[in-house]
Amino acid sequence: MAKKLSKIPFVFLAIIVIVGLFFPSVPAKVDTSAYNYSDIAWMLTASALVLIMTPGLAFFYGGMVNKKNVISTMLQSFICMAIISVLWMVFGFSLAFGDTVGGIIGNPATFFMMNHVIDGKPWPLAPTIPLVLFALYQLKFAIITPALITGAFAERIRFISYCLFICLFFIFIYAPLAHSTWHPDGILFKLGVLDFAGGTVVHMSAGWAALASALYLKKRSEPNHQPARVTYVLLGTGLLWFGWIGFNGGSAYAAGDLASIALANTMAASAAAALAWIFFDSYKGRKPSAMGTCIGAVVGLVAITPAAGFVTIPHSLIIGVTAAVVSNLIVEWRTRTSIDDTLDVFPCHGVGGMVGMLLTGVFANQHINPAIENGNGLIFGETHLFLVHLLALVGVSVFAFGGSWLLLKLTDFISPLRVSSEDEDLGLDISQHGEKL
Amino acid sequence: MAKKLSKIPFVFLAIIVIVGLFFPSVPAKVDTSAYNYSDIAWMLTASALVLIMTPGLAFFYGGMVNKKNVISTMLQSFICMAIISVLWMVFGFSLAFGDTVGGIIGNPATFFMMNHVIDGKPWPLAPTIPLVLFALYQLKFAIITPALITGAFAERIRFISYCLFICLFFIFIYAPLAHSTWHPDGILFKLGVLDFAGGTVVHMSAGWAALASALYLKKRSEPNHQPARVTYVLLGTGLLWFGWIGFNGGSAYAAGDLASIALANTMAASAAAALAWIFFDSYKGRKPSAMGTCIGAVVGLVAITPAAGFVTIPHSLIIGVTAAVVSNLIVEWRTRTSIDDTLDVFPCHGVGGMVGMLLTGVFANQHINPAIENGNGLIFGETHLFLVHLLALVGVSVFAFGGSWLLLKLTDFISPLRVSSEDEDLGLDISQHGEKL
Amino acid sequence: MAKKLSKIPFVFLAIIVIVGLFFPSVPAKVDTSAYNYSDIAWMLTASALVLIMTPGLAFFYGGMVNKKNVISTMLQSFICMAIISVLWMVFGFSLAFGDTVGGIIGNPATFFMMNHVIDGKPWPLAPTIPLVLFALYQLKFAIITPALITGAFAERIRFISYCLFICLFFIFIYAPLAHSTWHPDGILFKLGVLDFAGGTVVHMSAGWAALASALYLKKRSEPNHQPARVTYVLLGTGLLWFGWIGFNGGSAYAAGDLASIALANTMAASAAAALAWIFFDSYKGRKPSAMGTCIGAVVGLVAITPAAGFVTIPHSLIIGVTAAVVSNLIVEWRTRTSIDDTLDVFPCHGVGGMVGMLLTGVFANQHINPAIENGNGLIFGETHLFLVHLLALVGVSVFAFGGSWLLLKLTDFISPLRVSSEDEDLGLDISQHGEKL
Repeated sequence: MAKKLSKIPFVFLAIIVIVGLFFPSVPAKVDTSAYNYSDIAWMLTASALVLIMTPGLAFFYGGMVNKKNVISTMLQSFICMAIISVLWMVFGFSLAFGDTVGGIIGNPATFFMMNHVIDGKPWPLAPTIPLVLFALYQLKFAIITPALITGAFAERIRFISYCLFICLFFIFIYAPLAHSTWHPDGILFKLGVLDFAGGTVVHMSAGWAALASALYLKKRSEPNHQPARVTYVLLGTGLLWFGWIGFNGGSAYAAGDLASIALANTMAASAAAALAWIFFDSYKGRKPSAMGTCIGAVVGLVAITPAAGFVTIPHSLIIGVTAAVVSNLIVEWRTRTSIDDTLDVFPCHGVGGMVGMLLTGVFANQHINPAIENGNGLIFGETHLFLVHLLALVGVSVFAFGGSWLLLKLTDFISPLRVSSEDEDLGLDISQHGEKL
Repeated sequence: MAKKLSKIPFVFLAIIVIVGLFFPSVPAKVDTSAYNYSDIAWMLTASALVLIMTPGLAFFYGGMVNKKNVISTMLQSFICMAIISVLWMVFGFSLAFGDTVGGIIGNPATFFMMNHVIDGKPWPLAPTIPLVLFALYQLKFAIITPALITGAFAERIRFISYCLFICLFFIFIYAPLAHSTWHPDGILFKLGVLDFAGGTVVHMSAGWAALASALYLKKRSEPNHQPARVTYVLLGTGLLWFGWIGFNGGSAYAAGDLASIALANTMAASAAAALAWIFFDSYKGRKPSAMGTCIGAVVGLVAITPAAGFVTIPHSLIIGVTAAVVSNLIVEWRTRTSIDDTLDVFPCHGVGGMVGMLLTGVFANQHINPAIENGNGLIFGETHLFLVHLLALVGVSVFAFGGSWLLLKLTDFISPLRVSSEDEDLGLDISQHGEKL
Repeated sequence: MAKKLSKIPFVFLAIIVIVGLFFPSVPAKVDTSAYNYSDIAWMLTASALVLIMTPGLAFFYGGMVNKKNVISTMLQSFICMAIISVLWMVFGFSLAFGDTVGGIIGNPATFFMMNHVIDGKPWPLAPTIPLVLFALYQLKFAIITPALITGAFAERIRFISYCLFICLFFIFIYAPLAHSTWHPDGILFKLGVLDFAGGTVVHMSAGWAALASALYLKKRSEPNHQPARVTYVLLGTGLLWFGWIGFNGGSAYAAGDLASIALANTMAASAAAALAWIFFDSYKGRKPSAMGTCIGAVVGLVAITPAAGFVTIPHSLIIGVTAAVVSNLIVEWRTRTSIDDTLDVFPCHGVGGMVGMLLTGVFANQHINPAIENGNGLIFGETHLFLVHLLALVGVSVFAFGGSWLLLKLTDFISPLRVSSEDEDLGLDISQHGEKL
């Protein structure tokens, strides 16, 4: 049976090879008149930077789990680079950015097998770079989102079920959210929701999926342990911070003022959040730790993600501090519940993303970014944008949590999600992959 | 004797210092009229990205060997950054890209001590960037090629002999291949061989040198072991994948459509190859492993390297899948022979490079890259390009394998290649470097 | 008391939040007429590259210390990303680059809370990029400088005192040096001192502060040990080398010839220094080691930093070789003294920076960089520039060493610098952070 199941993906790849072989893929002449080559230079770089975030995340998470689950946790991130990329090339980009179907999903045939991506018209929101580069850049966001969830069900999920789940998550949660938020015909876009670099699409969706996963998969048999290797967490944080320059800076789709401001905001928020986290730890009587610094920095990066291109630097400091304190409190609360969100993905990414989303509604500033259509944030005395964000927050939360729960049920039905308790005791590295740290 | 030998390189450096001191190096006015500054911005970045590949390779290989040989294996990669750079600055760039001598090698005096590189005319195939930037970018390719070979003779080569060998390999194998393939007067270039980013020059040459090395150095005393640290392999793969963005994207020598397409192809092929590798492993009854995912991804990256700027995305998926399956089969075959190619450099880089080269002849598409002169690939019903690639493949293979064999013999004659069996048992980290993991 | 102290930074952050909340930060229209978007694309990238150097440094240093101090050493680097960034955003950028106060320091109110950085006029020495991008890029230099010092007092400093010290160091040593050297009204700038990318401001200042620290904190109780993990040193070196591309290449503030030349010089010097270091080790009868290669490469990078944009490539080879031999000799001398500069920061960064500064005075070449105003270097028969550099070297050394000593005394008075001998025996990882490798 396992043997039989293992043939399915192989057959799938074979089909791709055959389809690809005969697929009409002769591009027409590309219209390059709108290109700005400096923007292309920066976006090529930004694509590279966002790519390194997933290995970074692998080390960030891998260093935190138990020694017997390090490799499996890392592989869960790495495999997203493979699985999501192939899906993206075949139909995923179309699902997220193809011709809209009701403002919530793209027509998967729009760019099937990347046809007419090479010679397509530039994306309206990234008008100065080739469509294929936009597709490449967006791919990196689609890769990291399911990888973010892995921290929640680490140490107890079957690898093959995990692979199936991320396919479903990508198709049914990520693609619709990306489409709704970043497609000009998307319902959230039309509502005027601001999400500069993916606070909603990436972090909130991953965070809610993480909470659903932790609840669905239930507690590990031995939830407590020492982090396997704090140095890996530090390395991962370094790579994430580095890559986030492309994540937030690239989301301006241009090398200019806005990218520069977004990066300054990114540094401000992450630095302030890292400090706030360890200061808050100290205040509670804990030693300032490397783990705390790293988690704080990442929470700051998460929280500034939706806001980076809309707010000023002092307000970014506030966003960082607020997100760190709120996440720190939620982590504390979470550990007193029976929710076994192994690496606190919900408190960090989910809550961080929500704080960022709400504070974007508070601090958004049309002087920073004239593209804001719904008026300024709450602090400038305008309420419309904030209420829109509040509404979207509730909607996205319900969708991401509920949808993930259904997909977990579906996956579990097809292929059990949880490893046997012997395999769990043995560790996933050995039981799932036959490898050892 | 060892003491005496150790003075030779020191004397060599002293000579460089003295020559450099009095070398006329007063650049004339540079003609910047042809420069495109966006291209420069991208190529500066690409140079950085390719540089990080060598440390990436060090971790990719270092994680796979026995615990007692990790540092020595890593150092073999790192030392290439030092040795090849110095050779490059003194005469290496001239050997590869200087005035042609018979279409197979450059005149080493052309840019001796980098004279007139700073104020030279841009390279004809990279006409919009400074010659010095072209030289810097190409240096990174020259660095990684000998480093790739190290996987084949890992765990049993003497460090000093290795250093000598890579000097000879660079001079007698790499430089002629780079010249023949990428110099407008080179014989392979004139033949119309397409090698976008170094499938032939870098991966095939390293692969054949690896096979020659494995055969020449013979088996290790204890060929089997657990990989020292799978996490290092993951880290190395992440850095390689990241750096390959510069490797393949930079080979367009411009920030534009072609670089964007090359990167989309790169992601498609590596992702498909990673999946194909572990699916094929599963099909054979093995567990999907982190090692398999990493090796598969790298094989895909290798195979797409010559093709990245010439093919469509669906065809890149095919190239990835094909290369992974073929390499996987050759690895399997290799393990049943007595060839001790420690880390399967030949099956991965050599075979991956050859599959990529042949499939470039199959899928090359003038709509993607109008610079193709020999017509389209086999799949479009044209045979010329494919036959040229077949011919070049045979020629390069014979040259790289035979030449490496002779250089190994020569090196061995000057300074024995293989460590004593005591040193091998002790591990190269201690015996060659006095260091310990 | 500790509890009380720990509230101070928290209160500080709270004040920032409150100030930020009401701070007028409505930017005026930005004048973008002078922007060059290719330069912006490159400088965004360079900012990312310099950011990764600090995690790189964390691994470079962290791998060298005793196993029980790895995390604490790494955190000392990482925390600089948090602390210095926040200071920078609040008043630090103004201190370094604000309106001059006597040519030695900036008015901290100039850009208080980054006001008018977003819409400020481009910096005169980086006229084609947004001021906010200049501020972001410079921040990365301010971050890494205190982090460089950490190697000197590793394994024995209290974390909280360290945090206080780097704040003081940044305010009283780094900011004045940066202002004096890189502000058009700075006294060293006006003197005509050439410091391309921070040899004086970054490496010499950190080196002298390191010597002061080593002397002030005195010897560790057990100064000798095996490096914890050579592979971390290799990883750190790889990331540093990679990031230095942004450090030296970005200091041209433009994507063009000068950045390209600076990078070629950077590769030449670091490669030559790495080789010279291990050749010199071999010459002295030691085995060529990974540690030696790494340290040599970093010394070469340090030495070329002030010179990268002013000299030719053969001269860069000389700078690399000279710096490596001199630093190697000083390390040897240092180990025979009672100075416990744990990781030889003074011999490597201090001496490397001084060698680079002096040799810039020897080899600076107006043909490479017409911006040189004080004439050519000594080798071209002109003495003015060299004498200026000699004078500045003495002045900066006295200032950095003496100033650091006073700040160490001040810090020690407020919060004892050295951990108790029990904590030292226990290791800082456990005693300061409650964490374990």
